[in-house]
Amino acid sequence: MAAMRTSQTLIPTLKERPAEAEVANHVLLLRGGFIRRLGSGLYTWLPLGLRVLRKVEAIIRGELNRRGAQELLMPVVQPADLWRESGRWKAMGPELLRLQDRHERDYCLGPTHEEVVTDLLRRAVDSYQRLPVNVYQVQTKFRDEIRPRFGVLRAREFTMKDGYSFHLDAASLDQTYQAMHDAYCAILRRIGLDFRAVQADGGNIGDSESHEFQVLASSGEDVIAYCPASGYAANLERAEALAPPPQENEAANALAKVATPGCKTIARVAEFLGVEARRCVKTLMLRGSEAPLVAVVLRGDHELNEAKARRLGGVATPVAFADEAAIRAATGCGLGSLGPVSLPVPIFVDRSAAALANFVCGANEDGFHFTGVNWARDAAGAMVADLRNVQLGDPSPDGQGPLAFARGIEVGHIFKLGTKYSAPLQLAVQDREGRAATLTMGCYGMGVTRLVAAIVEQCHDDAGIVWPPAVAPFDVSIVALDYARNKAVREAAEAFYKACGEAGLEALLDDRDERAGVKFAESDLIGAPHRVTVGARNLKNGMLEYKARAGGASELVPAAEMAARIAEAAKRVQG
Amino acid sequence: MAAMRTSQTLIPTLKERPAEAEVANHVLLLRGGFIRRLGSGLYTWLPLGLRVLRKVEAIIRGELNRRGAQELLMPVVQPADLWRESGRWKAMGPELLRLQDRHERDYCLGPTHEEVVTDLLRRAVDSYQRLPVNVYQVQTKFRDEIRPRFGVLRAREFTMKDGYSFHLDAASLDQTYQAMHDAYCAILRRIGLDFRAVQADGGNIGDSESHEFQVLASSGEDVIAYCPASGYAANLERAEALAPPPQENEAANALAKVATPGCKTIARVAEFLGVEARRCVKTLMLRGSEAPLVAVVLRGDHELNEAKARRLGGVATPVAFADEAAIRAATGCGLGSLGPVSLPVPIFVDRSAAALANFVCGANEDGFHFTGVNWARDAAGAMVADLRNVQLGDPSPDGQGPLAFARGIEVGHIFKLGTKYSAPLQLAVQDREGRAATLTMGCYGMGVTRLVAAIVEQCHDDAGIVWPPAVAPFDVSIVALDYARNKAVREAAEAFYKACGEAGLEALLDDRDERAGVKFAESDLIGAPHRVTVGARNLKNGMLEYKARAGGASELVPAAEMAARIAEAAKRVQG
Repeated sequence: MAAMRTSQTLIPTLKERPAEAEVANHVLLLRGGFIRRLGSGLYTWLPLGLRVLRKVEAIIRGELNRRGAQELLMPVVQPADLWRESGRWKAMGPELLRLQDRHERDYCLGPTHEEVVTDLLRRAVDSYQRLPVNVYQVQTKFRDEIRPRFGVLRAREFTMKDGYSFHLDAASLDQTYQAMHDAYCAILRRIGLDFRAVQADGGNIGDSESHEFQVLASSGEDVIAYCPASGYAANLERAEALAPPPQENEAANALAKVATPGCKTIARVAEFLGVEARRCVKTLMLRGSEAPLVAVVLRGDHELNEAKARRLGGVATPVAFADEAAIRAATGCGLGSLGPVSLPVPIFVDRSAAALANFVCGANEDGFHFTGVNWARDAAGAMVADLRNVQLGDPSPDGQGPLAFARGIEVGHIFKLGTKYSAPLQLAVQDREGRAATLTMGCYGMGVTRLVAAIVEQCHDDAGIVWPPAVAPFDVSIVALDYARNKAVREAAEAFYKACGEAGLEALLDDRDERAGVKFAESDLIGAPHRVTVGARNLKNGMLEYKARAGGASELVPAAEMAARIAEAAKRVQG
Repeated sequence: MAAMRTSQTLIPTLKERPAEAEVANHVLLLRGGFIRRLGSGLYTWLPLGLRVLRKVEAIIRGELNRRGAQELLMPVVQPADLWRESGRWKAMGPELLRLQDRHERDYCLGPTHEEVVTDLLRRAVDSYQRLPVNVYQVQTKFRDEIRPRFGVLRAREFTMKDGYSFHLDAASLDQTYQAMHDAYCAILRRIGLDFRAVQADGGNIGDSESHEFQVLASSGEDVIAYCPASGYAANLERAEALAPPPQENEAANALAKVATPGCKTIARVAEFLGVEARRCVKTLMLRGSEAPLVAVVLRGDHELNEAKARRLGGVATPVAFADEAAIRAATGCGLGSLGPVSLPVPIFVDRSAAALANFVCGANEDGFHFTGVNWARDAAGAMVADLRNVQLGDPSPDGQGPLAFARGIEVGHIFKLGTKYSAPLQLAVQDREGRAATLTMGCYGMGVTRLVAAIVEQCHDDAGIVWPPAVAPFDVSIVALDYARNKAVREAAEAFYKACGEAGLEALLDDRDERAGVKFAESDLIGAPHRVTVGARNLKNGMLEYKARAGGASELVPAAEMAARIAEAAKRVQG
C-alpha cells in the first residue's frame, strides 16, 4: 500500500446523506467512498475501505501469530453432512444459508467453522504430542440476517477472524483462552479504541466461560455493566446481581389476603396498597422443559434477565412466557394476580426478592393479593437464583463499588466450548497413557468488517470520520488548492507528496480540479489524521498549512520541514 | 510470517500417496501437509499451504499496484438480477451455483465479477475525467465443476485475482491491456517459473484480443504452439495455420468419379486409390446457426480446430457435428462419402485444403469418390478460412521458423471485452464533448490457488516439492537429528534457528522426536530451498551440513557462518 492521487483513485464520495443509512458508520463509509452496497446486506469494499480493512487484519494477524496461533483457510462452502453430525443442520434457523450443488448435494455457506475445523483435526492429529493446536482464519462468512442493517456493522456477507483451539485438558484450554483474551485486548489497544472485555453469556455456543469485546459507542446495541472502581465489566445479560442483606430485623407480620380490584400491575397494586413497588414481588410464568410451567419471582422494581432464566433447570429454550390460558388452567387466576404462596408449579425466586420480608404478592385469585408474606413461612419451596438485570448503582459483584452502564458494539467473542463439537464429531487422540481422550475446545471470533464499522461509530464527528492513526487509509491528506491552474501549488504539492513517501508516510494527494470547499470537506469526510493544505498565499512565504483531523488549531510549517514533522508525530503515536 | 517449529505447527504429512490424487501437485500438496480435502473440490489451506498462497498473492499485488491497478473487494454472493441484465443468468450452465436467500430471492456464488464491477462503475463514475479505472480483487470464487480434479488445480472453490478496466476508447484499453500483460509476465518471472504468454481464443468472454499465461509442465492440459526462433506463442486453439503456396504448376486433371466400395475413412480411401492422405480432403458437417448445416473441408492429414470453426459466420455455438440423418436428408449420402462438389450447403474450406489441386474427395454418393478435383472448376463457391490445428513443423505465422509444441497449465487469461458488459448494463459516461459514451472494458484473471498447483507441477522431483525461493513456505529447513535426547544438537539447532531469524531467513525447525529418515524425507517433501542438518558428529567439528533442495552435493559449513551464507545465497537469487 502506498500513496495515491485522488484523480486516479476510485473514491466515489457522496455530498448527501444516503437515504438507506441510519447510523454514523453506514452514512460515513458510504459518503467517504469506502464501501458501496451491492444488494441487501452485501457490500463492496472500495480501495479506501479495503486499505482500512487490511490494516485491521494485519494488526489482528500480528497479535495472534505472536501468541502462537496458526493461520489457515477453510472453505466458505461446507458440506451439510458435517452439520448433521453436530446436530446444527436442524438446530440452526434460516440464518444458515443452505444450497445444493449440481448433483443436488446439500451445502451451506459457512457462518462459522466449528464443524469443519473439528473434522480437520480428527483427520490430522492423532496424538497428544501435537497438542495444543490453535488455528485461525480471516475469511468471508455469510449469515442470512432477516433484516440486515447498519451497513457493514450487520451485513449478510462479512469478513470474520474465527479461531479454534484444541486441548487435552481444561488447564491447557485456560492457558490458550487467556492468551487469546490478551491478544484481543492488544488488538483493540493497538487500533486505539476505547473498549471493554466483558464477561458474557455463552448463548447457543456454550454456557461456560465466555468474554465479549465491546467497543464503546453511544449507538451500541449492547449494554455493559461495569464498575469504574475495579474494572469489573459484564454484558447486561451476564452481570451478576448480588444478594442484598436479608431484612433480618423486621418481625414477621401476619399473612393477610386483601382485595385489590382491577390492580393487575405492580404500579397499581403498590399505589392501591400504599407500599413501595420494591416491597411487592411480581410472578412471571415461563414455559417449562419438563413441567409445563415454571414460575419466576422478582422484586416489583426489577426486570427479568432472560439469559439467566435460560440457565435455570426446567425452563424451555428459547425462553418464552406461558400462555394465559395455560396459567389459568394451572392456577385458577390470571396474570395480574399470581404469587408464590401455594403456587402448584416449580418456583424460582430472584435473590433480591428472596431477601424481602413482609412483602406483597398476588394471591392466585383474581382481584386479590397477599400482604405480610414471608418466604420461610408462606412459600418455603422456592429456589433462590440470580434472575434479574442489574441496575445502575447496584453493587459490583466483586464488591468494589457501584455499577455504571455503558453502551457497546460487540466486535469479538471468545468461548470455552468444552466438548460441544468434539464429542459428537468424535475428535479424540491418544493421551499419555494411550487412552482415547475427547479433546476440549475453545473458539475465538472477531468481526473484522464489523470492527471497521465500530471504529467509525466511536471515531467520528459532524464532518466525517476521525480514523485512529493505526488504521487510517492514509496518514496525510494533501489538499492542493487550485492544483490544476497554479504551477507553484502543483510543484509544491508534488514535492511534499514525494517527501511523504520518503518519510514513510502514506499520502492521498487531492490533485483534482475542484473547489477548495469540496476538497476540504472531502478531506474531513475521509478522515486521515493529518491534513496539509498547499495554497498559493502561504507558499509565498515557503509555508504549508497543517491541521490535525482530531482537532486543534491549524499551523503554518515550512514546506521543507512538514513531512519530517508529521512523521515524528506519527511515530510518537505508535510509540 | 516468521519461523516455526514442526512440533508446534499443523503439518499433517502423509507417508503414502493418497488414493484420491492422480497428479503431482495434488499428491505432493496433500502429502506435504499443505492442503486437506473437505469435500468434492473443496480444500482447506493448512498453515504451510497458506504461507505459499500469501507469498504468491503478495507478488501479484505488488506488480499490479505498481502499474496503477487498485485493489477492492466485491461480495462472493451476487444478486441474480445483474446476471439477468447481462444475459448470463440464462447463458451460463450448471457450473454457475445458484441459490436463494430466506426471502426466496435468487443469487449466485460468483465465478467471476463482470456484472458486479460494471454495476459498481455505472453508479460510481459519471465523467471521463475519472477514467481509465483499473480495479482488481483477490477473492474466493466458486465454479460448480461437474468433475473437480487434480486437487487445487481444478477445485470448485478457489482463490482468483480478477481485474477489470474501463476506458473511453480503444487506445486507452490497449495501454492498460499491455500494462497488465507486462504485470502478469513480471509476476511469473518473480515467482521463478518457466512460462509463455500466448495468444488465446477469447472463448465465451469475447472474440477480440486475448492472451493466456501458461506455466510449462508436461502434465499441462493445454497445448502451446510456439516458434523457438521468434518467440511467437499461441494456444493450439488460436495458433494460425498459414496458407501454403498454391500448387500452381500442376495442370488440372479431368474430374472422375470412381467407386470406392467400403472406403469411409481418409486412410482407406487413400490406400484404395494409391494417393497420399494429404492429397485427399475430408468434409465435416456442422450444425448451422442459420441454415441447418454448414460444411467444413480439411486436408486429409489435418484436424479441425473447433475454436476457429466457432468464429465462422453461420456455425451454431457451441460447435457440434450434425446428425447423420440430417446429413443424409440434405445430401443423399452418409458421412464417409461427403465432398464439396455440388454440395447443397454453405462450404468453408481450410487454407491448406484450398491450396490443393487434383485432389480426392467424396462424391456425395455412398461408395464413390471424385479424383482430379480442382476448386475453381469443380467447387467454386467455397469460402477459404483458417480452420485447422497447426502441426509440428508448420511455419510460424510470423514467418520466422517452424512451430514446436509444449504443454502448459493456464494460470492467467486477459481479454479485451469491448462493450460486452457495458452495453447491456448501460455503463456510459459523458465524454469530452458531453455526449454519452459507452465504456470499453478489459478483464484480467489469474488463478491464485491454481498458480500454486502449477508451481508444484513444474517444480518437483521424486522426493517432493522444490519450491522456487520466492514462494517457498520457508527459506530453511532445519533437520535436527536426535533433538530430543542430544543436548549439543538441541543447543546448536536452537542457536542456528535464532541466527536464521536475525539474518532475515524464515526457518522451519524439525524439533520432533522422530527418526532421521523421517525428518529427511519430510524436509524433501516440504521442499524449502535450503536444508541444514544439525548432527552430533559434525557438531564435534563445529560444522553443520548444508544441502540445496534443488540439487548438488552436501557441504559442511562452520555453524557460526551458516545463516549468513544462506542469506547471501538467498539475496543473490532475488537480485
